[in-house]
Amino acid sequence: MSTNHEEDIQKEEVEDANLASEAEMTEDNSVETETKEAEKTELELALEKADEFENKFLRAHAEMQNIQRRSNEERQTLQRYRSQDLAKKILPSLDNLERALAVEGLTDDVKKGLEMVQESLVNALKEEGIEEVATETFDHNLHMAVQTLPADDDHPADTIAEVFQKGYKLHERLLRPAMVVVYN
Amino acid sequence: MSTNHEEDIQKEEVEDANLASEAEMTEDNSVETETKEAEKTELELALEKADEFENKFLRAHAEMQNIQRRSNEERQTLQRYRSQDLAKKILPSLDNLERALAVEGLTDDVKKGLEMVQESLVNALKEEGIEEVATETFDHNLHMAVQTLPADDDHPADTIAEVFQKGYKLHERLLRPAMVVVYN
Repeated sequence: MSTNHEEDIQKEEVEDANLASEAEMTEDNSVETETKEAEKTELELALEKADEFENKFLRAHAEMQNIQRRSNEERQTLQRYRSQDLAKKILPSLDNLERALAVEGLTDDVKKGLEMVQESLVNALKEEGIEEVATETFDHNLHMAVQTLPADDDHPADTIAEVFQKGYKLHERLLRPAMVVVYN
Repeated sequence: MSTNHEEDIQKEEVEDANLASEAEMTEDNSVETETKEAEKTELELALEKADEFENKFLRAHAEMQNIQRRSNEERQTLQRYRSQDLAKKILPSLDNLERALAVEGLTDDVKKGLEMVQESLVNALKEEGIEEVATETFDHNLHMAVQTLPADDDHPADTIAEVFQKGYKLHERLLRPAMVVVYN
């Protein structure tokens, strides 16, 4: 995901560079035109030059507005997904914490302590827009079936039987799919 | 003597200001000149117009490059500190984890589990550039003294006696200071 985004940015930079050098190139062309058509009057040449620079100015002005717009959009995207990398790296800690909580024979103190850590971690992620993926019905965009069971009357196809590992998303972007057992 | 020198400087400043505004003024002047001296030839007018748009284009082009440069710098800063908000919110979980680990009478299983969570959390933060603040010698840029002890021969001033709560920084930017007891 993040790699695609970086590629997009790079592509835009290349486009920008092309447009920037285009402006410089038209200038060279005008010199050629002047020498070829020497029979033109001074006035015609001056008017052409005025026209040419007016067009160049208008294009540069439009391009400037494009750059500003793109730069704003890019900044908003960066802001929206800024926590993506750290969040992804924190998910295994949350898995480990859940596994630790599932251990038999924890004292109340330890259990309380662990739950506090878990809660504060989940809240920190939630505040940054990271939430668990819902696991009501199987959705191949959000879930990965690691095992299947035959569907029957009590368990219609696409019913999720078990969640092996929770999935998470950042806003609408999937950070990792939920690993599930599904009827089909 | 010094008065003369100051006058010289002031004179220079005035000259600079004149030069700077001259560029902007030529544009306005050309409009006035056109109306005043109606006897100007078409050629002169065309040449003036060409000049005017050439200057406008050059300025727009320079401005475009400025915008691109600024936008790149901004993007780099956003990238560099992107994990700041989530990291700050995760630090209390790490504190809670350390407190849980300090509880007496943990079974080996629980202790191992907690240490695994702690380690994975610390590593996730480290990969994103977040590290503990060093606490060798007191530094008011990195530490907050919550208590002081009188310095003596064995404990010179600015020696840190105890760390109440760890501090963290993201690259060179402080996320929160370490809370320390210091000799002074």
